[in-house]
Amino acid sequence: MNIRFFNARILTMEEGRKIFSGEVWVSGDRILYVGEGRSNDDIFQELKIPVIIWDREIDCNGNLLMPGFKDAHTHSGMTLLRSFADDLPLDQWLNQQIFPVEALLTGDEIGELTKLAVLEYLTSGITAVFDMYLTPDTIFEAFDSMGMRGVQVGGVNNFSQSVEALEDWYVRLNNKSPLQSFKLGFHAEYTCSKELLLKIAELSHKYQAPVYTHLCETKAEVEGCRDRYGMTPAAFLDSIGMFDYGGGGYHLVHMSEEDIEVLKKRKLYAISNPGSNTKLASGTAPISRYLKEGIPVALGTDGPASNNCLDMFREMFLVTGLAKLKEEDAAAVDAMEVLKMATVNGAHAMGLPDADVLARGKLADMILIDLDQPNMRPFNNISKNIVYSGSKINVKLTMIGGKILYENGVFQTAEGPAAIYERAEEIIKDKKQKISKNVL
Amino acid sequence: MNIRFFNARILTMEEGRKIFSGEVWVSGDRILYVGEGRSNDDIFQELKIPVIIWDREIDCNGNLLMPGFKDAHTHSGMTLLRSFADDLPLDQWLNQQIFPVEALLTGDEIGELTKLAVLEYLTSGITAVFDMYLTPDTIFEAFDSMGMRGVQVGGVNNFSQSVEALEDWYVRLNNKSPLQSFKLGFHAEYTCSKELLLKIAELSHKYQAPVYTHLCETKAEVEGCRDRYGMTPAAFLDSIGMFDYGGGGYHLVHMSEEDIEVLKKRKLYAISNPGSNTKLASGTAPISRYLKEGIPVALGTDGPASNNCLDMFREMFLVTGLAKLKEEDAAAVDAMEVLKMATVNGAHAMGLPDADVLARGKLADMILIDLDQPNMRPFNNISKNIVYSGSKINVKLTMIGGKILYENGVFQTAEGPAAIYERAEEIIKDKKQKISKNVL
Repeated sequence: MNIRFFNARILTMEEGRKIFSGEVWVSGDRILYVGEGRSNDDIFQELKIPVIIWDREIDCNGNLLMPGFKDAHTHSGMTLLRSFADDLPLDQWLNQQIFPVEALLTGDEIGELTKLAVLEYLTSGITAVFDMYLTPDTIFEAFDSMGMRGVQVGGVNNFSQSVEALEDWYVRLNNKSPLQSFKLGFHAEYTCSKELLLKIAELSHKYQAPVYTHLCETKAEVEGCRDRYGMTPAAFLDSIGMFDYGGGGYHLVHMSEEDIEVLKKRKLYAISNPGSNTKLASGTAPISRYLKEGIPVALGTDGPASNNCLDMFREMFLVTGLAKLKEEDAAAVDAMEVLKMATVNGAHAMGLPDADVLARGKLADMILIDLDQPNMRPFNNISKNIVYSGSKINVKLTMIGGKILYENGVFQTAEGPAAIYERAEEIIKDKKQKISKNVL
Repeated sequence: MNIRFFNARILTMEEGRKIFSGEVWVSGDRILYVGEGRSNDDIFQELKIPVIIWDREIDCNGNLLMPGFKDAHTHSGMTLLRSFADDLPLDQWLNQQIFPVEALLTGDEIGELTKLAVLEYLTSGITAVFDMYLTPDTIFEAFDSMGMRGVQVGGVNNFSQSVEALEDWYVRLNNKSPLQSFKLGFHAEYTCSKELLLKIAELSHKYQAPVYTHLCETKAEVEGCRDRYGMTPAAFLDSIGMFDYGGGGYHLVHMSEEDIEVLKKRKLYAISNPGSNTKLASGTAPISRYLKEGIPVALGTDGPASNNCLDMFREMFLVTGLAKLKEEDAAAVDAMEVLKMATVNGAHAMGLPDADVLARGKLADMILIDLDQPNMRPFNNISKNIVYSGSKINVKLTMIGGKILYENGVFQTAEGPAAIYERAEEIIKDKKQKISKNVL
């Protein structure tokens, strides 16, 4: 498909480039042209390409094209457990509510529940997700069939998955679809034996591949690691060679100086999840410190059982708002820095260097932000409007790999919402029945 | 107009009443019937009324009718200054950016800018606002012409408005329109001389009327009051009789034990503004404590210059999320309590006892929440879905006083968005020109 967007405001997210008016041309899954609106013949000449017959020409009416948001940490399949057990202490929530239901889920069911998450990602302008959940093969199929760009990451721990499975997924699920990839990873230090962690580090060395994990999310996790190994989590994992090829941590709330040094030394990504950390009362990550140290920060929603929505606008407001509260400084974490976290840094964190900005040759993963809404007016500063006032209501169009998957509130995915909603309701009904039987 | 909503889920917000399926009938500006869907003839008989010819019958398709949200603290006219000066320390923000522009605004301009806010309120399901700003007469006209239920409150201080003006508005702007009312109030202790405060307290006694003000918002405010009067703000104001007829405070972040005692003794409303308190780094209000003490909490967005959006979904997530963070307890402030703050308590705080719940004889101020969106699925707990996952994208219809003002993304207000947006852009352009001339 060749699609021409014209009459747009454009925020490419290239360093230092301001919003300007112009056109974006898309051919196949890539961006062919980003620039001012001129005679199209002139542009064809400049690009040294033959005249294109457009499949669609979209008048953006002055609305804003920008790179899609990258949700750099989520567990999509947990849509099932949204509002299933909230307002509970963390340990009760996990052990008594979440785990028993998860234990009953089949791979196919997780695939279906992942599709429900994809619908929500599209409404929030999310064009790629970094997903850790139980059954990578069925999740792969779900993302791929819906047209979602999915970067999966292993969630190995003492109770599920294995190093063998991790290697198998790593080998099989990379290079199988242009939309899908797979990264090495494990659930967390506190759910893995040292033996297991050593094997994962070995695998990282074998493939010279980065590793990702939940890291320093809660006080209890950090204290437990100190008790076990006499070190805080990032320092301990680094001491066994886990981050020799880089990677990143999810959450990164409770950090020692040693942990921060590890982030810097290994050039790790700090993937922050402020919505989840707020709702689960985990604490506030030291975002200003990360920025000061030059540690790249990306943003993720975490899973819908702990957030409970998949909404990058929430994460963007919170990552700066909570930093302002923490530092008692309304100037902490500038809005442009936040937009960079949600787009460029997210893409880099999850190994998608071609999905970071709007420029010739980059992936056509982009969104059209509706500025014709009262929360975007007046135009004092459009970037700040997006970060501080933006909402799902402002997502007019979501395109992934050159395909429009959501436009004006209508899903153009292979499967529509009605069937996906129905299936999710059936699955939760089934699980509730099984649990109540188990209890009786 | 007689409007019948059928095939709806209904959350009346009456104490202890669960969501059920049924119908809501509206006649004029009031609710005629809320109950299960039965033969309409049976209902006419039960109500002892003649058969109604419906102007509209709306199939809700299983979506949720509930009372509209009450934005219990805002400065609507500040839409002009959205994203005008963010990411700045509070004093620079106010003194160097906000005040100079405000000083140039005319009453008519404030009316226009208020209309822009009304559009956004409607997209967020807000059916009444408690508004403090500079020119009550033009704000009254703006709300009334747009069909918005507006409760205004005086913002008297040493620099603008006066006790005489306050009394004049109080007498004139109450009972002038069924949609509008006016409450006694002043900007804050720290912007009013003791003489001025005494006169306002006197006025409250004259009319036996409650008084509202910004209260204990920042540490600096509390320290300043201690320096001036040897008491914290609520305690000081109570000592001069300000709250003898009740009222409420906006923000209430930094509270002494004496202040909390005043809230309890005078039955004041604690009107919380978590979005603004976050973005301006003011701190986190002790919401769990208020609930424990039986102090009614309501929610407000504050003005769009400090938030920056007018979105009750943001406030609902934050009021519980920030309490969870503050208490380090994921069980703090249950979602149903939050919904009550955003509806029932807000209505009561602003003197709208007939706008609190959906019931026969109550005002037809209600909203239809779109459950046919991925962020609302599955239906594990619809109330929690609204609080933790809800967004403007879920507001399908907003009705105020029996009139549908917003439906499926389309405004049905007297003035449409295009003209209002254009006027706002013109006003900010004009102010920027004048400021740059003043500087030169």
